[in-house]
This record gives sequence, structure tokens and C-alpha cells, in this order.
Amino acid sequence: MSLIVTGTIGIDTVHTPTGKAEGVPGGSCAYFAAAASFQTPVRIVAAVGGDWPAEHRTILESFDNVCLAGLETRPDSKTFAWGGRYLDDMNQRETLYTHLGVVEEDPPAVPEKYRDSEYVFLANTHPGVQAHLLSHFPDRKLAVADTMDLWINIARSELVSLLGQLDGLALNYEEAEQLTDTRNPVTAARKILEMGPTFVTVKKGEHGAILVHQDGVAVLPAYPAELEHVVDPTGAGDSFAGGFMGYLASTGKTDFRSIQTALAWGTVIASFTIESFGLNRLREITRADIDERMRKFQAAARVG
Amino acid sequence: MSLIVTGTIGIDTVHTPTGKAEGVPGGSCAYFAAAASFQTPVRIVAAVGGDWPAEHRTILESFDNVCLAGLETRPDSKTFAWGGRYLDDMNQRETLYTHLGVVEEDPPAVPEKYRDSEYVFLANTHPGVQAHLLSHFPDRKLAVADTMDLWINIARSELVSLLGQLDGLALNYEEAEQLTDTRNPVTAARKILEMGPTFVTVKKGEHGAILVHQDGVAVLPAYPAELEHVVDPTGAGDSFAGGFMGYLASTGKTDFRSIQTALAWGTVIASFTIESFGLNRLREITRADIDERMRKFQAAARVG
Repeated sequence: MSLIVTGTIGIDTVHTPTGKAEGVPGGSCAYFAAAASFQTPVRIVAAVGGDWPAEHRTILESFDNVCLAGLETRPDSKTFAWGGRYLDDMNQRETLYTHLGVVEEDPPAVPEKYRDSEYVFLANTHPGVQAHLLSHFPDRKLAVADTMDLWINIARSELVSLLGQLDGLALNYEEAEQLTDTRNPVTAARKILEMGPTFVTVKKGEHGAILVHQDGVAVLPAYPAELEHVVDPTGAGDSFAGGFMGYLASTGKTDFRSIQTALAWGTVIASFTIESFGLNRLREITRADIDERMRKFQAAARVG
Repeated sequence: MSLIVTGTIGIDTVHTPTGKAEGVPGGSCAYFAAAASFQTPVRIVAAVGGDWPAEHRTILESFDNVCLAGLETRPDSKTFAWGGRYLDDMNQRETLYTHLGVVEEDPPAVPEKYRDSEYVFLANTHPGVQAHLLSHFPDRKLAVADTMDLWINIARSELVSLLGQLDGLALNYEEAEQLTDTRNPVTAARKILEMGPTFVTVKKGEHGAILVHQDGVAVLPAYPAELEHVVDPTGAGDSFAGGFMGYLASTGKTDFRSIQTALAWGTVIASFTIESFGLNRLREITRADIDERMRKFQAAARVG
């Protein structure tokens, strides 16, 4: 089944306690598409500016299944750029700068030939823009959006309106609590289901994820990474989403058990992303590496 | 196989956002023994004062498998007493008072007939006292201790010395980092293995647990509880330990896979403890309730 992601393509500069990467490929679409491409072809809808490095295009094109036909170049605009610094506790980071560039302009155009997309992921942006993009996919079978605290604060009504059109919502633990004023992720997610979606994925970073679906609840730990393997957490959430949606699109399924299984694929692929800066680690690995880590993860997370 | 726990029997007063329980049975031995008793007989070594309510003895005796022959009563002393208040975020609590009572006196005596105990759990107390108690069990097959930040701060050398005599150590996420100055629970636990034990259980409360064993790593989420079912988190850690050790003692095993399975039993039994104040919920349930929840947990935490 066809998979599409709408979001950002960015230029990232990341400082960590042990290193630095300047001007590497970033943005939700880049991480999502690279992660999903191990399982299924993936279409990108995003915009970049005239300053977008040709080398970044080459990197994205190096992932066989990534289709860039929906990547719009605006010669007189600037590419979205983000700089951040991770603290000694890699679960914490500070933003050094955010240059919105094209993200402040009109949303990217959805190519006519992409309108038949069935699995749709709306990466994090203003929920009004997400709703606008979603309206281009009348044949969709599964629509999932990511959101964040900023939109809960300043665009709550647009977010609630969007929820009525979604199958799934992904958000962080604190954001689930913030959206529902409920200090329990399971109960908070249930309240979000009442707003429309069939399922909510509560992301907990190094502590894994909780899925609350109208047909059941699932919990999953993160992959237990050693300190030396956690190089740069940037893109973990978008890679998780890419692995998750990539699995579902590859199977054509949308039921609870399939969504539960998809969580594990998202977890495993994200565990590779954080092992290096940018897309470096995802460029090195093969599907066989992912399958092998899935077996390790299943053994480590076996219950009873 | 015989199972023994050394620790405290206390009188707790607990305030939560929705209720209050005054003078209920508490202490590590009470929670541990009640939890373990669903799987195997369990011996308690602890001391209480002359003020210990007869009703509390009746409650402990109501658990069929709990043996109180090692519970020493000191008529002129006071029972350990603790008061605490949970905040709206039930993961946070403040201590209102701690009256050490008998805990400040000599350690409880280990009855001669208990010296053949094979599975030994040393609940949290000064590591010097834990080492003293451990020396009474020459036939032990598996010795596990719990510890906390206080002892890492003020009795580090005694704790390190104890580690050389243990098979397993249980501690919280932050404490594992504190003991090893390492900001990653897997790597921190590996460093603790170098100090002697065969395995380390890193407890993460609502986020589950990580097991680092010389033969492998396991990760487990917590049981996904709804807000309305989280009444009082007191005793969750000791109930987890009781379910964990109870399973191992009931099987007579100590290998990695058995320890991994034991984590799930600890998780499931602790999920009942927090559903009411004190031992109330554990008094209501049967082994069949635990087995049913284990099946639900296995379904919810299925990977792939």
C-alpha cells in the first residue's frame, strides 16, 4: 500500500556531550522516510529552499524506496534549519536556534499523482496545516499525525478539529497529560480517543511507548541501548513513526494487533537512528540488520 | 525451595490526592511476604515494638504461606512508623515523618531453624546490617538485596563489600546512575556487575524495569494501569521483589530466563498492590486473579 509523509526537510547542527555534527540532513520527513524505506516505498511532501545542499539530496536518494517527486524547491527561500545541544543526560536538550524558512510560507503542494496515497503520516506542524494536507488524500486507509506541546497551547481548537479526521495520534507522555489534564498516560489516551481517533501512541523516549486503541492496550519498552551506542537522539521519534507506518503500509493492515506489531518495528529502527548523527546509521544498515535486532529485542522483551 | 526476607514491619499513614489510610500495615517485609506468598511459603525476619497492633498480625497471618516465627517483638520498643503524602503526580511523594523505633536497635535475630534458607531477599537497610543478616544463611542458593540512595551516599564502602557476596542487586534508575556515575541504566548496571553480582534489576516504577545479567539483558514495561486503579503506590517495589523472588523460589531456578520470567510475576503482583492502601488489595485476590492478569500483561506487552 502507498505510504506518504508530510513534514519538514531540514539542515541540522547537533552538539552532544561527545561530538558535533554540522549541517547534516534533518527534519521529520528525512528521518521518517529513511526509516520507512526498509519496509515499503515512501513518498515525501515537503519544501526546501535554494540553500538546500545537493549532497543532502544525494543522501536521501541513496535510500532505494524514497520518492522525492513531492519535494518542492523554492529557490528564493531558506531551508528549515535547527541547531540543538544535548546535555550530559541525553534525554534533555536545548534548542540553540530554529530558522523556520520555508516552514513559515505556504504549505508544500501535494502532487496530483500522490492523491491516491493510502497510508498518510502528518509529521508535527500546525494542526491547521496538517488538516489542509490531509484533505488531499481522499482514498486514505490510515491517517496518523504527530503533534507537540506548542500546538496544544496555541492551536488547541484546530488540533481537536484535526483529531476528528485522524485514525491515530502520536504524542509524548507529557503532551498527552497536557492535552487532557490527566496525570496517567493510559487514561489520558482514552480521553483523546473520545475526540475521534481509533488509537493514540504515547511516546516515552527511552522508556518505550504505550498504545491505547479502541480494541486494546499495548505497552512496549525501548530497545535497551548501551551508553556508547547512544550518539545522537535526534530523529528518534520520526524514525519510530517511519518504522511504524512503514510496517503497516507493507502489510496493508490497520487492526490492533498489527498496530502493536508496528510499534516494535518503530522501536527497532529508531534504535539504529540514534547510534550516529543524522541519517548516517540508517545509511549503513540493511533489512537483515533490522531483522536481527528485532529478534534480539523480542528475546529481551519477552514476558513470562 | 525455602524463601526468606529480612527487613521492616511498619505502621504506615499514607495520604494520596483522593484519600488517606492511617496506621495500616507497612514495611518491606509485609509487602514482600504478602506478594511472595501467592507462589511459595515465605519466612520473615524483622522486629516490631510493643505498640504493634494485634490486628496487623491477624492481617499478615491471613496470608496462608507467611511464616511469622522470625518476627521478634520487643515490648519496650516502638515499631517502625512512616508517614507520607503522594502528590497529584503519583510518581512523587514526600515523607511526612519516619520514626525508626526498633530499626535503630540491634538487627532482628535469625531463628536457628531459618538458617537453611535458600532464597534470601535483603530488603533495604544499611548494607552493613544486610551483610550481617546474610551471614546467617550459609546454604543460600540466591541472595538478592535492595538498596537506596542514602546508603550509596553514606555507606558506599559497606555496599560495595556487600555486592561481592550477592547474586543480585535491585535499585532504582537514578540510584544505578548514582552508584556508578553513569547516565545510562544498562551501562550503569554492567558496571555494578563488575562489583560482584550476577545480575542487577534497575527499577523504573511506572516505566517498568531493566535486568542486566551476565548472560543477557531483559526489559519489561510496567502493567498499563488506568488512573482510577492507582490508589496508593506504597509497597510497589517490595511487592515486585516478593513476586520476583517468590516465583524463583517456587521453581528452584536461578538462570537468566527464569529471572526474566520472575520480573513479569513481580510486575503483575505489584500491579495489584497499588490498587488499594496497604495490603488490602493483596488480601482480596487469589492466585487465579494473578494468573489472569499475567495473561493480559503478556498480551499487552507482546513484541512483534
